Amino acid sequence: MARPDLPRPTEDELIARYFAPLAGPGGLALRDDAALLAPRPGHDLVLTTDAVVAGVHYFPDDPPASVACKALGVNLSDLAAKGAEPRGFLLTLALADDWDEAWIAGFCTGLSEAAALSSCPLLGGDTVRSGGPTLVGITALGEVPAGRMVRRPTAAAGDRLLVSGTIGDAALGLALRRRPAPAWAAALPLPARASLVDRYLHPRPRLALAGALGRHARAAMDVSDGLVGDLAKMMRAAHLSAEVEVAAVPLSEAARAALALDPGLLDAALTGGDDYEILCAVPPGAVAGILGEAGDAGVPLTAIGTVREGGGAPTFRMPDGQPRTFRTGSFSHF
Amino acid sequence: MARPDLPRPTEDELIARYFAPLAGPGGLALRDDAALLAPRPGHDLVLTTDAVVAGVHYFPDDPPASVACKALGVNLSDLAAKGAEPRGFLLTLALADDWDEAWIAGFCTGLSEAAALSSCPLLGGDTVRSGGPTLVGITALGEVPAGRMVRRPTAAAGDRLLVSGTIGDAALGLALRRRPAPAWAAALPLPARASLVDRYLHPRPRLALAGALGRHARAAMDVSDGLVGDLAKMMRAAHLSAEVEVAAVPLSEAARAALALDPGLLDAALTGGDDYEILCAVPPGAVAGILGEAGDAGVPLTAIGTVREGGGAPTFRMPDGQPRTFRTGSFSHF
Repeated sequence: MARPDLPRPTEDELIARYFAPLAGPGGLALRDDAALLAPRPGHDLVLTTDAVVAGVHYFPDDPPASVACKALGVNLSDLAAKGAEPRGFLLTLALADDWDEAWIAGFCTGLSEAAALSSCPLLGGDTVRSGGPTLVGITALGEVPAGRMVRRPTAAAGDRLLVSGTIGDAALGLALRRRPAPAWAAALPLPARASLVDRYLHPRPRLALAGALGRHARAAMDVSDGLVGDLAKMMRAAHLSAEVEVAAVPLSEAARAALALDPGLLDAALTGGDDYEILCAVPPGAVAGILGEAGDAGVPLTAIGTVREGGGAPTFRMPDGQPRTFRTGSFSHF
Repeated sequence: MARPDLPRPTEDELIARYFAPLAGPGGLALRDDAALLAPRPGHDLVLTTDAVVAGVHYFPDDPPASVACKALGVNLSDLAAKGAEPRGFLLTLALADDWDEAWIAGFCTGLSEAAALSSCPLLGGDTVRSGGPTLVGITALGEVPAGRMVRRPTAAAGDRLLVSGTIGDAALGLALRRRPAPAWAAALPLPARASLVDRYLHPRPRLALAGALGRHARAAMDVSDGLVGDLAKMMRAAHLSAEVEVAAVPLSEAARAALALDPGLLDAALTGGDDYEILCAVPPGAVAGILGEAGDAGVPLTAIGTVREGGGAPTFRMPDGQPRTFRTGSFSHF
């Protein structure tokens, strides 16, 4: 991507030109050694860090604005799952040797939009040579009322399991990004293809659900490594199991169209990564409450199953009552 | 470094075996999507993030425990300069494809020691494939009494400039790590060589000075990119200049021995990076106070010059009164 004939800005110039305009008040215009954050009294801070790497978590030719959207989004998704409201983030940008200014400009445009949309300003960062592919590392900070972070391992038997939005779109979008394109791609209408690829490129962290999770959910996590694997993780942490109705798992129209062309894609949809939806365990008496609040917040939320006693892997039941097993337990970026 | 005949642990196994034992209470045993930090009432959080990359910031064959010490140390040094007390850190470990378990084990031993020494527990992290050299990214969090973070751009004309410890050791240590070794290396006694290399490998963040800085310093930063360049940065931020007595800049016995062999090494000593000492601007009336407290804390602190009106580059004056210019303004890892 580099055009060696163009002089590239220095690190100080990059900061002044592209990053300082993104800085919130606590970022001190990125001109100090550190940033400042004064948490609201009576609140706990929630901290999460996730990195995305070119060629590992995204395609090197993904639009830089989309890379920024994903890098921030995967972190904000963790905050949302914990019931936290974003307060800001720190950025580590480790650049491949062939970076150019146009990439940085596009990246910062995407970062600025994603940060504004979630009221999560840039607080500070570090820019280094990666010596390999570009890596974008983000540490995001959020706040919850003291003692109210929604935990992952705290589900109880009898809790209903709910997921936000739709599952599997990003995994199908990833398949569509690969070359050669899968056999079913050509038969899928263009709008459906576009919508699946968009879900892969642009996570939509469910921050609007954070408050309702804090009030109603007994446990929650974000679905980032596939519903099957992530549910198994949540149940293992609670020393419990679960039963899920496969037909209840919410699928988008585009995903349904793809599955109609190739029913085997159910594996990809339920075990692929990058959904960035919320999986939560809610006491039966609180289900109506959280569904109502999610509806008010404009976030679809669907009951897909129930937490059960026992420690085995969760059972996914098909409409005929038969259990369905999945090829891979979980997707790993590692 | 990989031995492909040995099976490597999975990410979950790495976390359970090596990282979870390092986690503080807020780290929730690294088994949740996020960490939790409850700042003390009446305190602000200070946040900093810095990454080190193999082949860029350290030698790929540096001992893994030293890499960990450096990765955490460079961040703690920023906290110290801001007058902050460490509360915890998040780790992004982006591993080269040839990582092996022995490297991780050594890295975690060093990280554990450095974290314990500074009461700065691991709160969370992310492990990914780097697709290139190993990168260690750390975000460190500290606390200051509300409104008391020591800023970088707030020096005033007439303030005395002080630095902690000794300057230039790490830059000379870096020169000794390079192959072929510099001409002066052979004439330098082994203990001096060992001490300089140790300063390069193992930053000693001046956390013991944090409280005194908060009480007495008008401005501070850590010296990470060379004294000459970092002082220029601090003065530029304040729209001021400075005058420094070169003879007053504190040098270790080992550095003095090296400079006696090759006086030209003064450039490397004063412009090389990785000192991780503190540079601060202190009102004349507060100098006795901060010197006293630094002495009580066991941290050497030396007055080297004075902040002056005007916006030009700081003047470094030799014992004969002549100004001395330096080859490079600042060391950059970028």
